[in-house]
Formats: sequence, structure tokens, C-alpha cells
Amino acid sequence: MALLETVRGPARLRELTLDELTALAGEIRTFLIDRVSATGGHLGPNLGVVELTIALHTVFDSPRDRLLWDTGHQSYVHKILTGRQAGFARLRKSDGLSGYPSQAESEHDLVENSHASTALSYADGLARADAHLGRTDRAVVAVIGDGAMTGGMAWEALNNIAGGPDRPLVIVLNDNERSYAPTVGGFAEHLADLRAGNGPGVFGRFGLDYIGPVDGHDIEAVQDALRQARAAGCPVVVHVITAKGRGFEHTENNELDLGHAIKPMDPQTGQALGKSTPSFTSVFASTLVELAEQRPDLVAITAAMTEPTGLLALQRRLPDRVVDVGIAEQHAVTMAAGLSMGGVHPVVAIYSTFVNRALDQLLMDVALHRRPVTFVLDRSGVTGDDGPSHNGMWDLSVLQVVPGLRIAAPRDGTRLAELLREAVAWSEGPTLLRFPKGPAGDDIPAVTTFGGMDVLRRDGSLDVMIVAVGALATLALAVADGVRAQGIGVTVVDPRWVTPVNPALADMARRHRLAITVEDNSRTGGVGSAVAQTLRDNGVGTPMREFGIPRRFLGHGSRAEVLAACGLTAQDISRAVVELVADLDAEPAPDGVELDAEGSTW
Amino acid sequence: MALLETVRGPARLRELTLDELTALAGEIRTFLIDRVSATGGHLGPNLGVVELTIALHTVFDSPRDRLLWDTGHQSYVHKILTGRQAGFARLRKSDGLSGYPSQAESEHDLVENSHASTALSYADGLARADAHLGRTDRAVVAVIGDGAMTGGMAWEALNNIAGGPDRPLVIVLNDNERSYAPTVGGFAEHLADLRAGNGPGVFGRFGLDYIGPVDGHDIEAVQDALRQARAAGCPVVVHVITAKGRGFEHTENNELDLGHAIKPMDPQTGQALGKSTPSFTSVFASTLVELAEQRPDLVAITAAMTEPTGLLALQRRLPDRVVDVGIAEQHAVTMAAGLSMGGVHPVVAIYSTFVNRALDQLLMDVALHRRPVTFVLDRSGVTGDDGPSHNGMWDLSVLQVVPGLRIAAPRDGTRLAELLREAVAWSEGPTLLRFPKGPAGDDIPAVTTFGGMDVLRRDGSLDVMIVAVGALATLALAVADGVRAQGIGVTVVDPRWVTPVNPALADMARRHRLAITVEDNSRTGGVGSAVAQTLRDNGVGTPMREFGIPRRFLGHGSRAEVLAACGLTAQDISRAVVELVADLDAEPAPDGVELDAEGSTW
Repeated sequence: MALLETVRGPARLRELTLDELTALAGEIRTFLIDRVSATGGHLGPNLGVVELTIALHTVFDSPRDRLLWDTGHQSYVHKILTGRQAGFARLRKSDGLSGYPSQAESEHDLVENSHASTALSYADGLARADAHLGRTDRAVVAVIGDGAMTGGMAWEALNNIAGGPDRPLVIVLNDNERSYAPTVGGFAEHLADLRAGNGPGVFGRFGLDYIGPVDGHDIEAVQDALRQARAAGCPVVVHVITAKGRGFEHTENNELDLGHAIKPMDPQTGQALGKSTPSFTSVFASTLVELAEQRPDLVAITAAMTEPTGLLALQRRLPDRVVDVGIAEQHAVTMAAGLSMGGVHPVVAIYSTFVNRALDQLLMDVALHRRPVTFVLDRSGVTGDDGPSHNGMWDLSVLQVVPGLRIAAPRDGTRLAELLREAVAWSEGPTLLRFPKGPAGDDIPAVTTFGGMDVLRRDGSLDVMIVAVGALATLALAVADGVRAQGIGVTVVDPRWVTPVNPALADMARRHRLAITVEDNSRTGGVGSAVAQTLRDNGVGTPMREFGIPRRFLGHGSRAEVLAACGLTAQDISRAVVELVADLDAEPAPDGVELDAEGSTW
Repeated sequence: MALLETVRGPARLRELTLDELTALAGEIRTFLIDRVSATGGHLGPNLGVVELTIALHTVFDSPRDRLLWDTGHQSYVHKILTGRQAGFARLRKSDGLSGYPSQAESEHDLVENSHASTALSYADGLARADAHLGRTDRAVVAVIGDGAMTGGMAWEALNNIAGGPDRPLVIVLNDNERSYAPTVGGFAEHLADLRAGNGPGVFGRFGLDYIGPVDGHDIEAVQDALRQARAAGCPVVVHVITAKGRGFEHTENNELDLGHAIKPMDPQTGQALGKSTPSFTSVFASTLVELAEQRPDLVAITAAMTEPTGLLALQRRLPDRVVDVGIAEQHAVTMAAGLSMGGVHPVVAIYSTFVNRALDQLLMDVALHRRPVTFVLDRSGVTGDDGPSHNGMWDLSVLQVVPGLRIAAPRDGTRLAELLREAVAWSEGPTLLRFPKGPAGDDIPAVTTFGGMDVLRRDGSLDVMIVAVGALATLALAVADGVRAQGIGVTVVDPRWVTPVNPALADMARRHRLAITVEDNSRTGGVGSAVAQTLRDNGVGTPMREFGIPRRFLGHGSRAEVLAACGLTAQDISRAVVELVADLDAEPAPDGVELDAEGSTW
């Protein structure tokens, strides 16, 4: 690491010879494998851009010149070269380096989020701003993967960049034939033509200059291409060919994802450290295989995430039942509407954070036509170490407005399987399941049911009703323990289907002195807010309080740390509930009341 | 109309000779001009597709073959040919024909909504479903305008269609060089190449078969091309050249929009019937010009809607201050983030119904980076005659989750101008204004202010507090009249900035016996729901009730009719409020209490 230790910022790179830069690339690769193996993170994408990033920082002068990464998970080398080597010891941990660019970390970082296909739009805006303000002294450079070109937004930007006057703009197409998974579609096939040296292709048709293909692991070749692009004074596409996961045999040999995002592992063997327990994702995966074997009309759709969303099992068993549309959530959802109109029942498996890309399609194309499409949102709630743009903390708020959409939040693996079966059996409109990243945990049985809801705990004294949303049932039960220790009676109920709100919740709340909701979703417009409205609409005056995520972006850290920072701990909530109960007037709780729905034994 | 009267369905067309079909085209054009002049509606787009639609219905056998229109406003001729001539007398009126395809109207209609760039995705889904279920007897045909190709979603679909196995699919590219306005960007320039007969171009590079260019007003030529495409057994692009507004001189001579969507007018002169009063849009337009003249860093962005969003005035005055990105809301918003990072203050003017296309970009690209971008949502609330997909009834619910976003709802023209000035002066994050279609009405002065809010009316007795959202202030005041007539004291308050909720509302509610909110937005997660949460968070137990739009899609009709169908009338709400007050316990209202914020005279 002799050279790497001398690099405190990109200016140092411009003092090094080409041989030294090449040696530096080797040191960086070793550094990446060593550090990311220990912490977990995006290894493969960054091993692919070592030489490219060195070339960028020698030809361009960041931060005066603007470097944009699409997506930011390929910015580790950029971080190493801009003075942040030390931070890799705590990569993606609280108080440590973000896994994405971060303005708070460095003046070299601009775009902080993890959603693909945006960089060309930022670049178009920056180039227009420079032109508008008469600034001619700085370059704008966007690095975009070929996988990100499957997102339509990138084409909206290309259309605008190509159609405007000649504002200088360098588009580096980092072509490794993959996003998470191999890049799909007609454009990917076209890139194979370009890699063969057959000219500017689609880019030329759009009216853009094109340089390439360039070997992305040849620093000098990349430097030459970038210099030529910078000098052009107009938008230029530089087509750079790289190998994802380059230099790490365990990822190079991994056909699946080339070390896209790894958990902590042994860098010698590539074996993950620690053991994994059954996750919500794996329960979904196995249940879907079972359902698909029973129902030939079930087809699953993924947006470039076959393995992380759990569809790999189905793809291996029944390959023609999984469609990967690329990073194209809009198309995924409307194509699902079309499939449904054609007699197929689609299951769209997607991360919660990415469903916002397809809100309009969910509303207008699926819900308006009352199509029975099943959506399965993984990584709902707090995901933690991927930072603010990976949390799925708005799904219950945003999607509750969709007319006719039924939303369920399974609290454990058994419920996930049950609710998925109910969802795909529903024929009158769309359904949606949402669950978090991570282990499904032990099953939490219901002690009884009430109006179609699962009652998870019940005391003789009807003081506090806690509505537990999905996987936060575990937290709700811990809150119940804390509250009960103060002699207060607690009922914990899991509505299973949270949207629309089950009116039985109003019946139940009427019988309690205080109602509480606990959700890993924004308090704003969340389940709690909707439950409160249902109580008002039914003339139930029971006081309510909602516990959820505040209206702000969340920093990165472990899931537990992030939840704690939101006050979503058993200690914080039970303390608050006890105080609320103390504030209620002294009227005692109704004791031993018989609830009247469903002939329950209440 | 001798021929047209004999057409009760598309089968009849296949009995007619080519000469008769040509004569029929002339009759249809006359019919369209006559009927749409009387009712208002999309005239220009339909005059452009008369021959194309006839050719489609002679070559394909709807409804077995699936015809998809992108967007549905070009489906009038299709409606005429599928037995719905009589319905045009009440086009877009309640109980009359929808302005878009409608499954309830006809088995020939599939996609009901008005949002662009979706048809290729539906078509891909339908073709996949047919392949999956082994149906080989029907064709899938998508008609997409060149303007809709500026939307990235269409490219997501093209990428998938081109990259798959050869599923039969006919893509009719209806190229009239426009959407609402002339089509922008590199692709539009490329289409000029294709129109010159220079081969398959971009489509060929994507691996798609291409037929064209074809004169879209030559029925036989279009029929030949369609037959060839159908026989190919794989995805084929048929490039058809048409003239928007063909056959109506007043639209052909209208450089602006070629009669895109007209108000009722005299078909002889093209003069609109009735007079228009100053609209919210025109107040925005003139205020923006004024602000832009003062601030060289202001730049406005539109997604293919320069005139309808009010940006035409600015474009005429300061042409380099308006950017039209095409039907590309995602790019519009992220490009705005880039502009802002580059030192420009962007004003993104868009219809409320289309902002859902860019929710993710608003969250991740603008809000996460705390960019001071101003969004201006026209056509918020109930728009009426355009039907369910044009209402802007979810903006306040969906966008309230965006951390750091401030949302204002101006009640009249003066407030719109004031709030727009406040919005563009705000430098700490994004702001958003939302207002409805139509006249801004007379100014509604405040009688006093309280905690930054405008108090519009106040009685001595503090019984009911009505929170008026935006333009529904007029309705709220009418409700106040109705309630007051029953001897109940009413306060009407307009918070001006509705998100985040002003905590002064809790202070004010505490002093009243009942709180009411009135909004032209979904009750689910709306302003009322957020106000109620603020009351709970502040320990205010005043009963509340929200009046807004229920959780369902709304039919078409006049704005007043649609609002009435939602119960948003002065009569309905005041009756409900009087009943609620009667239900309250008999405790009298506090009289003459001095509110303590801002040293108000309360």
C-alpha cells in the first residue's frame, strides 16, 4: 500500500506516472477486497471501476469538475481517492462511511442516492445551469452503467441531451454487461454490436458523439478517450468496457452476481461469516414456488433483482415463469397490468424503495382497471446500512391512497405464506404484501381472532390496545410486556390486512382506554393515521397515539440503531404509553367486557 | 353521413370498398368537427387518425385482436366505429361518453387512462400472456404517438419487446411531430431521418423490424403496412405519418396546439363560446414572468405542456428561461435537481395528476439533497370532464411524506402570487404550490391572522373551526354560512402552507368545540388526517371530522357535479356539521377567549 498511503486527494494522482497509477490500481483492488470483505458492501461493482476512476480523477479536476455516479454504489474507489481510506473500517456502519456518495463526507460528492438511471438527468441540469450562468470553466461527467440504461429515465435524459444545443457533457457508459444481474433487452444486444467496434449505433442515431469501445482496465486508453471527450465541447458518449468483480476470484467465478453486494466474508474463501436464518425473502421464495406449481397462470416479474427478491428459486424450477425487465419498474407494473388483462396473474416482486418509481402505473394502469396483480415489497421499513435511499418507509403511506388496493403486512413467515395465498386468490383488484429485510423470526401465534384480525395478547383489563403492523409485532409484544409490568392491561392486535383499515379496529378501540399503533413506516399518513381516521369516522373517541418513523431521512447504521434513533424501541414506547395512561382521567377500564364480533370468546 | 349512419360496428367496414372507406373518412371528419365543437374535447389528435383508425379496424378484428391507444385521447374515431356515435352529444359530460376509452362503454376498449407512454408496456404484457397461455389467434396492436416516445417508459418497453423471443406485436408509431406541443429532443430529430426514408434507424438498432414511412391518410397504404406487420409474427414498428388537426382550418392554422383539446366553439370561426375569467393558471403565468424578470436565476421547466401550465407567457418574454423536456416528468424533476446544484432556481410546472410519475425523483433527487426547487401543480383536486385519470386528488396525501417539502394551497389569485414569491425565495429545500383548474375567483381577504395563518371569518362563539384548504375556501365559507344560520359560531382559517401542518392549528382547535377540514384531495392521508395527527401530538382532544374525496376513482362530469358526488357541497357539509355539533356534549363554547399567538386581537 506504499502508493495508496500517499494519496490524500486526487491532486496526488496527477503527480504519478502511468506505471505508478497501474501499481496503485493493484493496491486499491487489494484494499477493497480486504476492507469490504470485513464490513460487507458493494464489492463487485467497485472492483470493476478501479482504473476508470483513476483515469477520471487524473483527467478531470474534481470538485470543480462534477463527477456523477449512476448508481453511487460504484463510488468506493472515488472515496478512496478523495481522502476517505480510513473510513472504510466502518463502511455502512453508524458514524462510518456511507455506502453511497455523501455531501456531508466530501466536497467531491454530489448525488447521494442509490436509485439507478438518474445521473444523465442531473448532468443535463448541471450543464444547463453552467450554460445559463455563463460558466465555461468546468466539465460535467456522468458515469452510468449499461444496466442503468434499461431504466427509461436515462432515455428521457439522452433525448434531451441529444436534442439541445451543444453543451459540453461527458457520458461514460460503464459497460460490464450487468446491473445486479446480466443486462436484459434489445439495448444490451445492441451494446454487443458496439463492443465489436461497429460504430456509434443508437447514440449516433440520437445525434450524440461516440468514442469507443475503450478497455476500461487500460488507464492510458481511458485517459485518452476522456481527454478527447472533454475537448469536444458537446455531449459525448465514452463507451468503456469493464469487468465487474475483476481481481477477486470468488466473485469472478460467481455467475450469479459477481460479488455485487456482499455480506461480511472470508476474503480467502469467499465464504460468508456468521450464519443466516430463514428470511422473509426465503419464505416468499418457497411459497411462490409452491403456488406457481399449483397455478399455471402465475408469472413473477422482477426489475433486475431476480435473486435478492427471492425469485431465483422459481426461475430455477420453472424458468418461463419469471420475467426480468431490467431496472424498469414502470414497465414492470404496466406490463403486469397487460399480463393480467391477458389472463395471467402477475406477482411483481420489488424493493419497497423502488415502488415509488411506479406509483403512477400502480394507480392508473393496475388499480383503475381493477387488475388482480399481486405486489410483493421486500426491504420495507428500515433497511439500515444502505442509507436513506434504501429504506422502504413510505410504502404504507403513499400506497394507501390507491383505490381498491389491499395491503397486508405479515408479522412472521407463516403469516407471509398465508397472506400470499390470499393475495393471489383475490380476483377483484390489486393486492400488496410488504415485509422487511432480514430474518422472519419465530412464529407469533394468535391467541384468538376478532373481526378477521389476529389477537396476539390479551389481558383481563382493557386499558391499552396496541395495533402491531407487520414485523413490528415483536416490538409491540415487548412494549406490552413493559406496559403490563406497570399493572396496565394490554391487548395486542395484528390486523394482517392493514389497508383499507378493518372497521373491527374501531369496535375494539371503543372498548379500550387508549389505542396505540406501532409501524416501521412514516408516521405521516401511515397506518396509525388511517386507524385514527377510522375511529373518528365511527364515532370512537378513544385517545390514540402513533409510533412510527418521523418525517425525515434516516442515516445509515444497523436496523436496530436506526429504529432506536426513531424512538422505535420497547423501552421508549412503553415509557410513553405508561405516561399517556397516567394522563388519562381516572375512570377505570371496563373489565371483562364481551366483544361482540364473530362470536369471539372475549 | 349516408355511410357513417350504416356503421354500427367495425364488421361493417370490411363490407365497404376503398372508395367508400375514403368517403367515410370525410364523413367522420365532419362528424368530429361538428360534435366536438359543441361539447369541447380532443379534436386535433382525432382528426389526425381518421384514416389510420379505419385501416386498423379493417385489418384487425377487434375485440378479439387487441387495439391499444397511447394516449386514449386519440380514440374518438375508434369510438365512432365501434357503435358509439350517439354518445358524442354528451361527450365528457356526466352520463355521457368518456373522453378516453372505457371498458364500461365497449368491449373494444381496454386501457382507460390518459397518461402517456404506457401502451407498449400493456402490449408487451398482453403478448406475453398470449404466449404463456398458448393463444395464437389474436393480434396485439399498440398505437403510440411520437410525443409519447419522449417518455422513458416507452423505451423500457421497447427494450423488453426487442430483447425477447419473437412474440407477434404491431407497434403503430403515429408520427405527427407533436404531442400537445411539437415533439422535442434527439429522437424527434431522428424521426425526421426516418420520415425521409432512411431505413429502420434506432428501431433497427434495437433489433426491431420496421415498416415505413407510410402516409397515414392513405387508407390502402396503411392497410398494406398493417397486413405486412401482422404477418411477420414478431414485433414490428409501423411508422405512420399523420397531420394533427387535419381537415379543420382553424386548427390547422393554429400553430400552438393544432386543436389539441378545445373548449366548445363555433365550428365556422373557431372562436370559443362563452367567456373565460382569470384562471389560477394565468395568475401563475403573469407572476412568474414578473419574478423571472427580477431574478435571472429562475428557469421554468415543463413536460410538453408549455401553454396549459401557463409557461407560454414566460417563453414569449424570456425564451431561454423555459425548458420543455417532452413527456418526461422523471427527467424534468431530476434535471431540476441538477439545475439547482448548478446555481439555478428551477420552477417545475406540471399537472398534479402527472407528478406521481416523478415521486421517486422528488424524494430522492430533490428532497434528499434539500434542493430549493419550486413545484407548481396545476389541475389539482377535481378536474372533472377528463375523467378519473386527470384528477389531481392525491397530491396532498402522497407528497406530504416527502421530508422537508413545504406545500401551499392558494385560495385565490392574490394568495397564489404571494405564495409563489415565498416559494421561490425559500432556499432550504423544495416547495410546492397546488391549485385547481379554472377561475381563481374573487379575492377572499383575511379578517385577521393567527400564527401565520389567514383567518377568513370569525364569530364571537368558538364552536366550530373550519380549516379551508386552497380553493375550497369558497366552499368552507358557504358551509360557515349554513352552520351559522343554526346559531353556531364558526371560525374559518386558511393555513396557506398546509404541509407540514402549522402547530398553530392545534392552538386554535383547542379553543373550539369541533374542528372540520375541507379539501379537494383524498380523505386518506390528506390535510385533515395530518391536522388530526397534529392535534393528537399536541394533546388537543377537540373532536375532528374531515371532508374530502373518498378512496375511489371518480367518474367524469363537470367539476361541480363530481364534487357533489363526493359530498363536497355546502349543503351536505353544513348539515353534517350541525349534526356533529348537536352530538357534542352540552358544554357551551368558550366565549370571547383571547387567543395568544402573534398578539392577535382575538
